[in-house]
Order: sequence, then C-alpha cells, then structure tokens
Amino acid sequence: MSGTLYGIGLGPGDPDLMTLKAHRLISGARVIAYPTLAGADSFARSIAAQVIPQDAREIVMDVPMTVERAPAQAAYDAGAAQIAETLQAGEDVICLCEGDPFFYGSFMYIFARLSELFEVEVVPGVTSITACAAKAHLPLAARNERLTVLPGPLPEDELRSRIDGAESVAIMKVGRHLGKIRAVIEDLGFAEDAVYIERASLPDEKVYPLSQAPEKAPYFSMILLTKGADPWL
Amino acid sequence: MSGTLYGIGLGPGDPDLMTLKAHRLISGARVIAYPTLAGADSFARSIAAQVIPQDAREIVMDVPMTVERAPAQAAYDAGAAQIAETLQAGEDVICLCEGDPFFYGSFMYIFARLSELFEVEVVPGVTSITACAAKAHLPLAARNERLTVLPGPLPEDELRSRIDGAESVAIMKVGRHLGKIRAVIEDLGFAEDAVYIERASLPDEKVYPLSQAPEKAPYFSMILLTKGADPWL
Repeated sequence: MSGTLYGIGLGPGDPDLMTLKAHRLISGARVIAYPTLAGADSFARSIAAQVIPQDAREIVMDVPMTVERAPAQAAYDAGAAQIAETLQAGEDVICLCEGDPFFYGSFMYIFARLSELFEVEVVPGVTSITACAAKAHLPLAARNERLTVLPGPLPEDELRSRIDGAESVAIMKVGRHLGKIRAVIEDLGFAEDAVYIERASLPDEKVYPLSQAPEKAPYFSMILLTKGADPWL
Repeated sequence: MSGTLYGIGLGPGDPDLMTLKAHRLISGARVIAYPTLAGADSFARSIAAQVIPQDAREIVMDVPMTVERAPAQAAYDAGAAQIAETLQAGEDVICLCEGDPFFYGSFMYIFARLSELFEVEVVPGVTSITACAAKAHLPLAARNERLTVLPGPLPEDELRSRIDGAESVAIMKVGRHLGKIRAVIEDLGFAEDAVYIERASLPDEKVYPLSQAPEKAPYFSMILLTKGADPWL
C-alpha cells in the first residue's frame, strides 16, 4: 500500500489562520516536503513551524532562481522523485503550501508530476486575497458582482484592459511591478479606490491607500481595487 | 467600552476546514449572530454547531425571500440594531458566515451598517472556490494566469463575453442558472474543460464533468473552467 500525498494550504501567514484539518495532519506528519527559493527560508515552513513534529523527516526542494525554466523543473523533478520513493514505501507525505495549494501554489508542480501515480488529497487554505480584504476592511464582491484576479507581472497593456473591464480586482505578486501597476490604475482614474496590502495577517503587515504605498514592495504584496463593490444590501 | 464585532468565515462546509482562530473565537462566544433565509436553517450555523457554547445567546436575522430589496434591508436593519445594542452593552458579537465574510457573504450587509460605529475584526475563511478546486483536483491558476469569478445569475450575454475573454473561470451560485451557463460554455467550445461541483467538502458533495451535471443544481454549486491553466512548471 502506497502512502497518500497531501497538499496542505496553510493560509496567508498567521498560524492561527491554518485550518483545523491542516493543523491535525501536520501535527501527525512523519514526512513533510516544501520548496525553498535559492536557499532562502521557506515561508510555508515558517507558518507551520510550531506544529511540525520534531522528528519529522523533511524533503526540501531547493529551486534555483533562473530565467530559464529547466533548472527549476529539474529541482521539482528531483523533489517529486524523493516524494514518490517515500509514498512507495507506504509513508504519507505532507506538502506545505502558503495560502492555498491550487491558487498560485508551487504544490501544483508536484501534483502535475505525481497525481496520476498516487492517492492525493488537497486541503484548501485561506488565500491571501480574502486575508487582505479582511485586513483592509474592503468587501470584495456581493450579489452579482464579478471579481478578477490578476498577477502583477502581466504586461502593462493587458493589466490596463483587464482592470478597465473589471469590477473588483485583486492584483497579486505586486513586488517590483508596483510602479507599473500604480501608473495603470492612476491613468484609469481608479487610484482612490485602490488599497495596497503587504504581508497580510503577519506581525509586520501594512495596509495603505495606494497613493501612500512604499516605493519598494515585497513579493507578498497585493493591490485591491473595489470600484464596483457595493456592500450595502 | 463597547464590544467588538467579529465577522467569522467558517469555510465551505466541512467543520474541519474552519480556521483555528474561528474555532477559538466561536468556542468562547457569548453572543452569536447569523441570518436565515425565509425561516430555513442557517448553513453557517450548521458548520459551527459543535463549537457554539450551549449558553450562547443567538441573534437570528430572518431574511424574507422577495424580489424587492426593502424587506431584506429591513431584516438586516433590525439585526444590526440588535447587534449594536449588544456591542454597546460591552459584549462581543460573533457573526457566523459560510465561506469568507467578504466574498459574497451576508456579513457585508452588517459590516456596512456598523463598521463606522464599532470595532470590527474580520476573520477570513476558506472560500468555496479553492475548496471546489481541491475536490475536483483542478489547479486554478499558476504563474501569470488570470482567474475570473462570475456569479451564475449574470445575464447570458455578459457570461458569454466574460468567459470568452478569461483563462480560469469560477462560476458561483449556479443553482437554477445551470442550463443557461451550460449552454454558454458548450457554445464557446469549452465544455470539456468544465467541472461541476456541488456542496464541496460536505458528506454529500458531488463532482462531475459538466456534461454529466444533474438537471437540477442547488444554490451552493459551482462550475470551474480551467482552459488556460497549466500546472506544469
């Protein structure tokens, strides 16, 4: 009997926003797995740190930061092989993911490699989008309103047309794209409806009107725009 | 000192997908509040049922099902007044919400009425979107992919143009709009990429290819379409 592969969403950062299910599965884990980026600490692991059993074995996939995709692919191939070996030996593997595993999560790359070979269970988590909305006191969508989720690295033209045609908008992974995104939103005349949020739910979180956003944004930052939202019934 | 109003997301239905924070706050609640629809049982309350203290006071807002908005508005006005009175007396009030409070949640109507008068904390929850994706084994968005969230009651023309221009699409509140939505998706040629999910994470959940969806869909059903998603790195 092979083990089960679990992809576990840990939520936006505050360990208190982990689900009961995530907490229970991680507490009982014998093998956990997670990626790191170019040797940096894993954000996902830091969220779960107090829950991971001390004697759990850790499969770390160190993903290099390169322009080409091949070196990162090789890192996920190698990680998937290690995970497969563990599952074949009858042991479950708990993959840790910040946010939700299927919402811009790296677990998708492990899932693509192993889901046809092994039993997989995905445990959804609180996404950064609703965590940011909660902190910014910004209702996202009511009744028949639409919500569009856009990654910040999209080209300026595409951001412009997508934001222009949308109601509520969440722009993820703002980071070094802040200048470009801000210019597009100002140009479209929506600057007053936009809020910048950084590291939502963590002790050093920041929430500002877009006009007061810092010059440098970290990768885990977001802009929420709710030009269409009407929270009044 | 007035009490604090908490808007608590309970996740998609499985009580195990509640966050640790939601669980702790509800366990200690002295007053809870939630809406019911035309006297029916509250889905939110059923998710939290095992956690609500037996001696907690319950503020129930019974919202009538009418075409006009005024009767529902009056129900939320009356509920907000009762909640305000409790907060003024120094007691916290825990508002229960299925999913996430700011993502198509009725808590938004209470928030709109009271957020400028009282301390409010919103506790985000797992949304039905990522819960459905987890159950359907359908990665939603990777890298620079876009996700569009559309409510099923939108007019056919708008659904058509929004789906046509999107990558991954989540259509919420399918219910009696299933026939219309299915026709649009088939017409656009995306039927094979679409999955129908009903009551995700509950014991009676259903996951089908759209072509095998039942004739009658409940309100809490969703269609996920991931024509653009590429989970491989």
